[in-house]
Amino acid sequence: VFFAVVFIFPRCQCPTHSHTYSQGNTSMAVSNIRYGAGVTKEVGMDLQNMGAKNVCLMTDKNLSKLPPVQVAMDSLVKNGIPFTVYDNVRVEPTDASFMEAIEFAQKGAFDAYVAVGGGSTMDTCKAANLYASSPHSDFLDYVSAPIGKGKPVSVPLKPLIAVPTTSGTGSETTGVAIFDYEHLKVKIGITSRAIKPTLGLIDPLHTLHMPARVVANSGFDVLCHALESYTTLPYHLRSPCPSNPITRPAYQGSNPISDIWAIHALRIVAKYLKRAVRNPDDLEARSHMHLASAFAGIGFGNAGVHLCHGMSYPISGLVKTYKAKDYNVDHPLNSFVICRSPHFPHGLSVVLTSPAVFTFTAQMFPERHLETAEILGADTRTARIQDAGLVLAETLRKFLFDLDVDDGLAAVGYSKADIPALVKGTLPQERVTKLAPRPQSEEDLAALFEASMKLY
Amino acid sequence: VFFAVVFIFPRCQCPTHSHTYSQGNTSMAVSNIRYGAGVTKEVGMDLQNMGAKNVCLMTDKNLSKLPPVQVAMDSLVKNGIPFTVYDNVRVEPTDASFMEAIEFAQKGAFDAYVAVGGGSTMDTCKAANLYASSPHSDFLDYVSAPIGKGKPVSVPLKPLIAVPTTSGTGSETTGVAIFDYEHLKVKIGITSRAIKPTLGLIDPLHTLHMPARVVANSGFDVLCHALESYTTLPYHLRSPCPSNPITRPAYQGSNPISDIWAIHALRIVAKYLKRAVRNPDDLEARSHMHLASAFAGIGFGNAGVHLCHGMSYPISGLVKTYKAKDYNVDHPLNSFVICRSPHFPHGLSVVLTSPAVFTFTAQMFPERHLETAEILGADTRTARIQDAGLVLAETLRKFLFDLDVDDGLAAVGYSKADIPALVKGTLPQERVTKLAPRPQSEEDLAALFEASMKLY
Ligand SMILES: NC(=O)c1ccc[n+]([C@@H]2O[C@H](COP(=O)([O-])OP(=O)(O)OC[C@H]3O[C@@H](n4cnc5c(N)ncnc54)[C@H](O)[C@@H]3O)[C@@H](O)[C@H]2O)c1
Ligand SMILES: NC(=O)c1ccc[n+]([C@@H]2O[C@H](COP(=O)([O-])OP(=O)(O)OC[C@H]3O[C@@H](n4cnc5c(N)ncnc54)[C@H](O)[C@@H]3O)[C@@H](O)[C@H]2O)c1
Ligand SMILES: [Zn+2]
Ligand SMILES: [Zn+2]
Repeated sequence: VFFAVVFIFPRCQCPTHSHTYSQGNTSMAVSNIRYGAGVTKEVGMDLQNMGAKNVCLMTDKNLSKLPPVQVAMDSLVKNGIPFTVYDNVRVEPTDASFMEAIEFAQKGAFDAYVAVGGGSTMDTCKAANLYASSPHSDFLDYVSAPIGKGKPVSVPLKPLIAVPTTSGTGSETTGVAIFDYEHLKVKIGITSRAIKPTLGLIDPLHTLHMPARVVANSGFDVLCHALESYTTLPYHLRSPCPSNPITRPAYQGSNPISDIWAIHALRIVAKYLKRAVRNPDDLEARSHMHLASAFAGIGFGNAGVHLCHGMSYPISGLVKTYKAKDYNVDHPLNSFVICRSPHFPHGLSVVLTSPAVFTFTAQMFPERHLETAEILGADTRTARIQDAGLVLAETLRKFLFDLDVDDGLAAVGYSKADIPALVKGTLPQERVTKLAPRPQSEEDLAALFEASMKLY
Repeated sequence: VFFAVVFIFPRCQCPTHSHTYSQGNTSMAVSNIRYGAGVTKEVGMDLQNMGAKNVCLMTDKNLSKLPPVQVAMDSLVKNGIPFTVYDNVRVEPTDASFMEAIEFAQKGAFDAYVAVGGGSTMDTCKAANLYASSPHSDFLDYVSAPIGKGKPVSVPLKPLIAVPTTSGTGSETTGVAIFDYEHLKVKIGITSRAIKPTLGLIDPLHTLHMPARVVANSGFDVLCHALESYTTLPYHLRSPCPSNPITRPAYQGSNPISDIWAIHALRIVAKYLKRAVRNPDDLEARSHMHLASAFAGIGFGNAGVHLCHGMSYPISGLVKTYKAKDYNVDHPLNSFVICRSPHFPHGLSVVLTSPAVFTFTAQMFPERHLETAEILGADTRTARIQDAGLVLAETLRKFLFDLDVDDGLAAVGYSKADIPALVKGTLPQERVTKLAPRPQSEEDLAALFEASMKLY
């Protein structure tokens, strides 16, 4: 019932508009993707079709030795495409690591890019393409406000083919590139439809190489993309709503199309994530998760995310000592991952606050909170609507417990004393936090961090 | 369960490929759309953002006097966009009417197009844009084989903004333009990703002007797009499967992404079509149907359609005397529609054979047939899997009866004596008929037409 109301009377709330209908903030820029086991073998042909003659293949040091990169390189060689490899992508990139890749791209004068890796690689490649195509820009020009200037991109970029190797970020479908702005200790992003990859090659074979914790953590990213985008402010309630479509943000609030992607991705997470984590040979489960990652990406890439993501950036930015299992060379058997400095997996940083966040937001759209709890396995037949947040939170706690997630922020090295810094680090994330269905004061944020110290 | 099997082992059936996996025929070129009541008012700004200075606005003679065209023109004027109106689009266009529009476009040397209307207008505008951008091509060059040469499009086209005013074809999202090839008496098409509109503006306010039978018939088109695309051959079973992605057809068989759109569109049809037909003021129902039309378009635009569409082209092409209610000037009160020559509504031509078609195809994917019957309201709990086709057919008959559909091909002027001609007219439609889940002999086709003579 709620859905119908939202969707049918798109009444603009913007103070500068006095009309009762019309608003048209819902612009669906959807993505080109090709799905199939082995599609990476076609990347050379795709580049040839694009007329590429000087390609940059980006990846990280760990993946550069693994089959996904090998398969892509073989295809480039086979199709006679001249290319240069850049494998210095930093896992959870920083402004400095972006800069290094940008410089490489500027010197190389490439006419196309291929990113083979997780969100870290794809995001770095997007930034490299953007700034190499816009050599007179300052780095902060395209970084989201308030930290950057958030300028719209008007230069033409080179084609970029993204080949995801994790099942998490959906970066192959989004116009987003995230990095750690080191001296401010916050994660922040560049958001523009212009940096969306030209094509995503979604090849489930790559998922067979992922260590268990990478599957789990990137799967939590899918989970939160779906849950958050489904519960963002509906598109017609978001403000400001610029009258010219070109100046409207990519993140426009939940809408009838992003909803479809979010719910579908959530169903897949509910059905397959546990299997995908437990069994590295479960190609069925891992294939479904690989596609779910793209689905959730298309959803949140149009709708946006909110508090789990907004609060995650200081969580991963301020971490001191956490040692991510499977993201480390100490376990040579089931881990191929080299990490050059302490970092905190993005998916884990978003999911740890999810029970607290959805308890907080549920009062706005309780039906949607209950609906997602049901998809995640809760029996909601007798649930009261005013308990929607608690029901979803409880369902999430159980899900995370089953998947061996650390017991809250305390378990990953935070204490109450860190809360002011965590709150301060969340404030600049208004690009996403203002999409939360419920406005938050600094006290609210502090309470959310506190409630996330312990999960079980 | 079936779904999992299809989706997980994408085994290539193409004789030239001997590998067990890999195939990657699933390429999702999805569409840019903006949805909202009143979005048409923004078309002038969109054109300005595109730098357009000489725009062609296409529509048909009936719509040119109605609000959708007025609103679009006002927006062009307000934004200072110079434009010329072409309102000579033929409802259910022909090669001759395409030619006329193409000539107009060639002379006008336009730098952008806006199509305001139903499938007839949008398709005509796509063809005009294509051939005006490719002045040295013969008309048959881009027409689908076997009637045309089916050449791939390599010229760049001008931007085209599509503003649908019917809720049916989804042409605002597809790379398809259909016309009646008069001297062969068959409907045939141009199919290329290149002619897909740059942007679709989906404005539910336009649906308020549609006469009831236009709502019903275009709604049947949505119904069949959804049902057919959901039951086409799965993408990995389609052949041939060219190894170079650029030569793969737009219609690639059902796949995990088109399935989502098809099912979602079907749910909306089940819930809202009857309401939309009955009550011209039911903005909620008509809004949902307007979006469903685009959803089904994205689905079938990637997956394809099969027998209802393949057989519909001779049905509408060979019609002699049918007088479409509401598509006629004789009912001035609830009909604004001028039709300059006898024609047969596309949506009606596809839906009349649907009970027979799905009875015939169900043996291939019975679960999917049952699933769609359930969505359309059947109680399938006790249905046997071998009755899937009958259950769906019965459900469709009831649905059509409730919506006052003529009682089969006999009721629209056909007799047994016409069957050979109808079969002959279906044979050149192999672009779609070969996507049917079950191959058909000429005898099969004759039996399907015969079974469609009477519905109730
Ligand atoms: N652009 C977006 O839309 C978006 C969305 C969410 C998150 N992000 C960002 O993406 C980054 C996280 O990306 P991620 O979660 O995909 O992980 P990642 O790219 O950081 O990779 C994590 C680790 O897994 C390894 N790895 C990746 N694929 C592997 C495979 N198939 N086999 C073995 N090892 C593999 C990598 O080498 C790396 O060590 C963060 O910076 C996050 O902020 C971006
Ligand atoms: N390109 C594709 O993907 C695709 C898909 C399916 C069908 N088609 C083709 O589209 C054509 C049918 O298009 P259609 O069903 O949209 O109808 P249409 O464009 O033929 O229009 C039907 C009638 O309705 C009138 N009309 C349209 N909108 C109106 C409104 N809002 N108010 C009042 N009158 C209105 C028109 O003036 C016309 O007289 C056929 O040629 C069919 O083959 C194309
Ligand atoms: Zn994320
Ligand atoms: Zn159709």
